[in-house]
Amino acid sequence: MADNIANGNASMIDTKAVFKRIYYDLKKELLQDPAFDFTDESREWIDKMLDYNVPGGKLNRGLSVVDSYKILKGGRELTSDEVYHACALGWCIEWLQAYFLVLDDIMDNSHTRRGQPCWFRNPKVGLIATNDGIILRNHIPRILKSHFKELPYYVDLLDLFNEVEFQTASGQLLDLITTHEGAKDLSKYTLPVYRRIVQYKTAYYSFYLPVACALLMSGENLDNFVNVKNILVEMGTYFQVQDDFLDCFGDPEFIGKIGTDIEDFKCSWLVVQALERANGAQKAILSENYGKTDSECVAKVKALYKDLSLENVFAEYESASYAKLIGSIEAEPSKEVQEVLKSFLHKIYKRQK
Amino acid sequence: MADNIANGNASMIDTKAVFKRIYYDLKKELLQDPAFDFTDESREWIDKMLDYNVPGGKLNRGLSVVDSYKILKGGRELTSDEVYHACALGWCIEWLQAYFLVLDDIMDNSHTRRGQPCWFRNPKVGLIATNDGIILRNHIPRILKSHFKELPYYVDLLDLFNEVEFQTASGQLLDLITTHEGAKDLSKYTLPVYRRIVQYKTAYYSFYLPVACALLMSGENLDNFVNVKNILVEMGTYFQVQDDFLDCFGDPEFIGKIGTDIEDFKCSWLVVQALERANGAQKAILSENYGKTDSECVAKVKALYKDLSLENVFAEYESASYAKLIGSIEAEPSKEVQEVLKSFLHKIYKRQK
Repeated sequence: MADNIANGNASMIDTKAVFKRIYYDLKKELLQDPAFDFTDESREWIDKMLDYNVPGGKLNRGLSVVDSYKILKGGRELTSDEVYHACALGWCIEWLQAYFLVLDDIMDNSHTRRGQPCWFRNPKVGLIATNDGIILRNHIPRILKSHFKELPYYVDLLDLFNEVEFQTASGQLLDLITTHEGAKDLSKYTLPVYRRIVQYKTAYYSFYLPVACALLMSGENLDNFVNVKNILVEMGTYFQVQDDFLDCFGDPEFIGKIGTDIEDFKCSWLVVQALERANGAQKAILSENYGKTDSECVAKVKALYKDLSLENVFAEYESASYAKLIGSIEAEPSKEVQEVLKSFLHKIYKRQK
Repeated sequence: MADNIANGNASMIDTKAVFKRIYYDLKKELLQDPAFDFTDESREWIDKMLDYNVPGGKLNRGLSVVDSYKILKGGRELTSDEVYHACALGWCIEWLQAYFLVLDDIMDNSHTRRGQPCWFRNPKVGLIATNDGIILRNHIPRILKSHFKELPYYVDLLDLFNEVEFQTASGQLLDLITTHEGAKDLSKYTLPVYRRIVQYKTAYYSFYLPVACALLMSGENLDNFVNVKNILVEMGTYFQVQDDFLDCFGDPEFIGKIGTDIEDFKCSWLVVQALERANGAQKAILSENYGKTDSECVAKVKALYKDLSLENVFAEYESASYAKLIGSIEAEPSKEVQEVLKSFLHKIYKRQK
């Protein structure tokens, strides 16, 4: 057993090392793309911009393409071609994530990201970051064309990335509009609104997309996996609820940042739950104090969350979600698909960061 | 002859009317896209955003898909399916243009566009415009999927739009970096730099893309049309040189705007030509006065352009370009392709606006 764990870890470290190496391969190719006649300055700009924005995250989304594909293939050793393809698709998702983050940080006027200033905060960058975001996005079809063009599922990959990007941008619009409206009238923050934002803005690209990539690589038709999509969207929603909970109740040392959802007027799961449970006086407290940077206002909101026992509400939500997800997963006909879904679920269940 | 002209005009008006009607069709479809679960507010937002940004231009790029396709088919009456497909592709180019303009206006901190405030200048919009730009971009694959998915050239359309968008974004990066560098040292503005920016930032999507769409609809393989691409890129460069010339020397009444390239430190064809011809003292005048909003500075730059006879330089460039383009066009084996290229050239040759 100890050996198994050790091997498991070794293989995980191995996967991550291979995955990281392939980033440099892909970058090198993009910097030599014959579709554009680079100047030295523009090549250097893209080189730095990629290193700054693409590889510095936790890489969970990208790595999960490789993990999922391995499980779908019954855990057998993958060929070097298969590893390369799965990693390249994983990196496409990391590129997509980088693109969203660069632009979201501009729209949210954020300051830091992954422990460094947001890209647009760099004095030489500024609003050029908008175009850099666009270039990050454009790298995805470049990678797909150079590595998948001759494969039978090439067009399905293009359709998949296009559809998921469209859903994410639509979710972002919904979030932006809702926060706009919510700033005038907090009662706009309801559970159906919350779920819709999370589903589109986060769940499709973070949870469904990696598995869909692995399924396409395995030769599957995604039309036959609507249930799998629904389960992954549900898991993505659960993941975001955890995120919202940890933003307020998590240990800043452990999660690596100090939450500011209350100050930022976010349509967070916590404020939605609070609004559902608050009496008239408590609603007035929320309306008066939510979305203000003043630390006394923040403290009043947090006190109200405690009064309403939102920690218990969350614990119950977590158990119920888990039970429901396990039920849906075990109704899936394929054992391999079940295993993929369970591996996702177990990575996030009761996480503290 | 008079009849022919009248018919020509009638059919042109007709094409434009049909083209405009199809915009409303496409918009309606996008607002009912089952890939996203719209709220009333988000549907209304997209509806307004599209009307504000997509159909208000001259529509030259979009209409030229229809015109080119007609010529490629030998001028015969098109079926209603052919008209619809050509118009849908034309609108995809207009959507692409709208996406670039919405984001460029943010990056350039512009004030007006097509006679109204830039989209992001609307008080309710602000930086949500960044995401709206992204949504405009995402509408293109939605339109392609809904109308072209079953056609044999679907994947080629996806590849084409992806490649041209990548080239445009790369050209925009080059422009942004060059203007950055030029602000410190004007001698960075050289003819090869200028040509490279224009080729990527403007020519591919404005000139090559419409013809490439028409060729794909005609069942052609774009690999066989590299010469046609080069001619169109050359024509796009010529078009941009005219634009730069008219910005300074055109009649504001006629071109519908007051040029500000000098004030904005643009890498314009005029400043590039001036730098090539200026002596030491004249270069000093340029360095001191270029890129300043002060009207005296602008006047000094304009006086220098006159001293250097840039109007004559332009007239010579225009004649030489025309002769060279006609030569390349007449070397094309297909009469229909020749006619497509000539129709483009005659639309822009010696234009005053």
